[in-house]
Amino acid sequence: MTDTAAPVVTALTAALGGRVDTDPDALDAARRDRSGHAAAHPPLAVVRAETVDDVRATMRIASETATPVVTQGALTGLAGAANAGRGEIALSVARMDRILEVSADDQLAVVEPGILNADLNDHLAAHGLWWAPDPASREISTVGGNIATGAGGLLCAKYGVTRDAVLGVDVVLADGSLMRMGHRSVKGVTGLDLTSLMIGSEGTLGVIVGATLKLRRTIAGEVCTLTATFPTVRDAAAASAAVTAAGIQPAIMELMDATSLAAASAVLGLAAPTDGASQLTIQTDGPAAAAEAEAIAEVLRERSADVRLTRDRVEGEELLRIRRAMHPGMASLGTTLIEDVSVPRSRMAEMFDEIARVERAHDVRIPTVAHAGDGNLHPNFLFDGEEVPPAIWAAADDLFRAAVRLGGTLTGEHGIGVLKSRWLEEELGEAQWRLQRDIKRVFDPRGLLNPGKVFGPRDEPHRQA
Amino acid sequence: MTDTAAPVVTALTAALGGRVDTDPDALDAARRDRSGHAAAHPPLAVVRAETVDDVRATMRIASETATPVVTQGALTGLAGAANAGRGEIALSVARMDRILEVSADDQLAVVEPGILNADLNDHLAAHGLWWAPDPASREISTVGGNIATGAGGLLCAKYGVTRDAVLGVDVVLADGSLMRMGHRSVKGVTGLDLTSLMIGSEGTLGVIVGATLKLRRTIAGEVCTLTATFPTVRDAAAASAAVTAAGIQPAIMELMDATSLAAASAVLGLAAPTDGASQLTIQTDGPAAAAEAEAIAEVLRERSADVRLTRDRVEGEELLRIRRAMHPGMASLGTTLIEDVSVPRSRMAEMFDEIARVERAHDVRIPTVAHAGDGNLHPNFLFDGEEVPPAIWAAADDLFRAAVRLGGTLTGEHGIGVLKSRWLEEELGEAQWRLQRDIKRVFDPRGLLNPGKVFGPRDEPHRQA
Repeated sequence: MTDTAAPVVTALTAALGGRVDTDPDALDAARRDRSGHAAAHPPLAVVRAETVDDVRATMRIASETATPVVTQGALTGLAGAANAGRGEIALSVARMDRILEVSADDQLAVVEPGILNADLNDHLAAHGLWWAPDPASREISTVGGNIATGAGGLLCAKYGVTRDAVLGVDVVLADGSLMRMGHRSVKGVTGLDLTSLMIGSEGTLGVIVGATLKLRRTIAGEVCTLTATFPTVRDAAAASAAVTAAGIQPAIMELMDATSLAAASAVLGLAAPTDGASQLTIQTDGPAAAAEAEAIAEVLRERSADVRLTRDRVEGEELLRIRRAMHPGMASLGTTLIEDVSVPRSRMAEMFDEIARVERAHDVRIPTVAHAGDGNLHPNFLFDGEEVPPAIWAAADDLFRAAVRLGGTLTGEHGIGVLKSRWLEEELGEAQWRLQRDIKRVFDPRGLLNPGKVFGPRDEPHRQA
Repeated sequence: MTDTAAPVVTALTAALGGRVDTDPDALDAARRDRSGHAAAHPPLAVVRAETVDDVRATMRIASETATPVVTQGALTGLAGAANAGRGEIALSVARMDRILEVSADDQLAVVEPGILNADLNDHLAAHGLWWAPDPASREISTVGGNIATGAGGLLCAKYGVTRDAVLGVDVVLADGSLMRMGHRSVKGVTGLDLTSLMIGSEGTLGVIVGATLKLRRTIAGEVCTLTATFPTVRDAAAASAAVTAAGIQPAIMELMDATSLAAASAVLGLAAPTDGASQLTIQTDGPAAAAEAEAIAEVLRERSADVRLTRDRVEGEELLRIRRAMHPGMASLGTTLIEDVSVPRSRMAEMFDEIARVERAHDVRIPTVAHAGDGNLHPNFLFDGEEVPPAIWAAADDLFRAAVRLGGTLTGEHGIGVLKSRWLEEELGEAQWRLQRDIKRVFDPRGLLNPGKVFGPRDEPHRQA
């Protein structure tokens, strides 16, 4: 009997008809997100849910047949959290992409999880509203995935993290029941905050089938953009710290190290930057945007001979082009493992020293970009081939431990998934790891929800050996 | 054997000496917060912890002797959540009031739980920083209590709720072990968000012994203050909705209904307002404060003949005096049960209609103030005597159900405690109530942490009958 003829697939097809996809290409695609990691074998089926009832039916059948379920959105994750493998159902909520309500008066929207972040904000713009969480992947990633991973983005230092922008979630539990968590009001402290517990839970507690989002008014006024280059990455990090120390809060403050700046410049056909040069890209917005930009320019000019400032949005986009070319730039250098450590802002220069040390110690190149305003670094480990080699993981291990030593954390916005589960216990400590795992068991006593992710292979009660 | 000679008290005294208080007045004071509710009998002892080790020792002894523990701060709560009764240890962390660290670069502070909200902000002001959660009780309430209840305050619509301003907490668990949850970086999504789970957990999951707080820079520029009176409370609510609809975000927008306005005016010796008149008090801050205040004034003048606006801070404080006199005003009218429903902003006028209906139906007076900017209403049920009579609870029941029907919630910022536990299951639904209770059991399998609170008497496994 092949997998696709398994009784659970028969039951799913009987209940959901054409929404159950067993096409080999579809099954193969469900094995992988954008981390470079893929499950070794394809899942049993991809269920393309179109309604909450579809999700509930899938979970009921999964529960009856003790079949594990991996929830998927747009598969843009970078930690393997949504990769589905052997014996599992891939439950895609990508087709559940409706905006159910927008209330300007209550500054909230109720949405299905599959809507893309950028599509939501395009829609909200017509109402003079926006949802602040702004992952770099906004054009291709879903709101549900944003919530499930606690994704961050470029604007977090000024406008908060995803947790701050979600009032409530609707969740289908392992047994197929539907639970509404949270509230529609600005305030609400009735009982434990399960909404926050769902944010960043990476599919291990339930399937998010709806969300009530806390919106902001569109920021009025102009947007000012600055770039400045520095002789070394440490100088750039020090300059970003100086901006923060001056008490100015930019909306965006991005840092590119020398390798990433050179690679991005090359793919854009621009002149090569000076050897070793690193760049800051900064945007200010809101009523004080121009004054803040001038104050930032003053701070930067003390440290850089090459400060550019524009109050024009189109010119600003031009200045941002290099930062936006980071991913193609990296891709031009080889395969990358994109990491995601976060440290207190004041330790960022030290973290760059640690990255340089790891590069030397492990003979590996780690071009790095950072959301400098909030201390979130994305070291890109370069390697040849498809699979991350053990030597790269050894270098990553060294780097993770350095981040934790500096008071930081393994992951600022990508999550643990499958790729970082081996380090989770080290950061949390054994007691907290066990407590978190026990909370997962309250939601999912039989371990059917995204088994092996986050808490790792130790926590897969349903698997025989 | 009297309670104070119980073996657990002997063990506590042996371990903690003079930090164990069995003075009858102290035991009596530990029975009550500011809700008006008191436990029927005094606790065994009050432990006045001075260090994390004191808390750990207390929890170890409590655990060994299966003695329940009620964590207390300044006892300013309004839901009875920290009231300690027969057979319980009152564990006060009020003396743990140190500020351990302030980092302007990382915009964070590490504090002990007993520090008062106002004292913290006085200290931070010297660093050009502040912690946004701003309960009306700020002068007398602790940061730990603010976190434990998820207290809100006047600034939430613009500057967020307590959840948005806490990066991590240190918690002593039921068995006396210490666990550090959360992170020091702006971003961090490693594992489940236990920090958020602790916020608003009202002492049912562990004892918060430290917190890493996310700070803001002091807001530069002027503060503008407006007041406006309206013929009816519905007109005032409609005016506040019009301000929001105009896309302006005040820092503070408070509403006083006719009874509360008249009472506050009377205690200040001011002329009585026109019969039925209600008032809005609004503040704007930040770089656009003046422009926003002018825009608000324009909106208000279309609806009120009596708009006052000042850009002077001292004059602004004068305008705020009436709002600040609300509590003495209420006290002059009788004993009050202070309630705390929250509804989506757009439903606030309807909620005032419901309050008027409940007043008529139950023949009770319910003067109400509201944080109008975020839809959080504080109806004050007036009664004679010390104990809340059943007829008042019947009226409150009617009002709670109305708030939930309007898409709102039982409590915006005071918490469930003992006073609202009977309505918790109705709002959450039986399945979610059970799920939340099961999460509590993961932290506290023997039910030693604040038993009977939040989840009610049904969840007191340690009590015989």
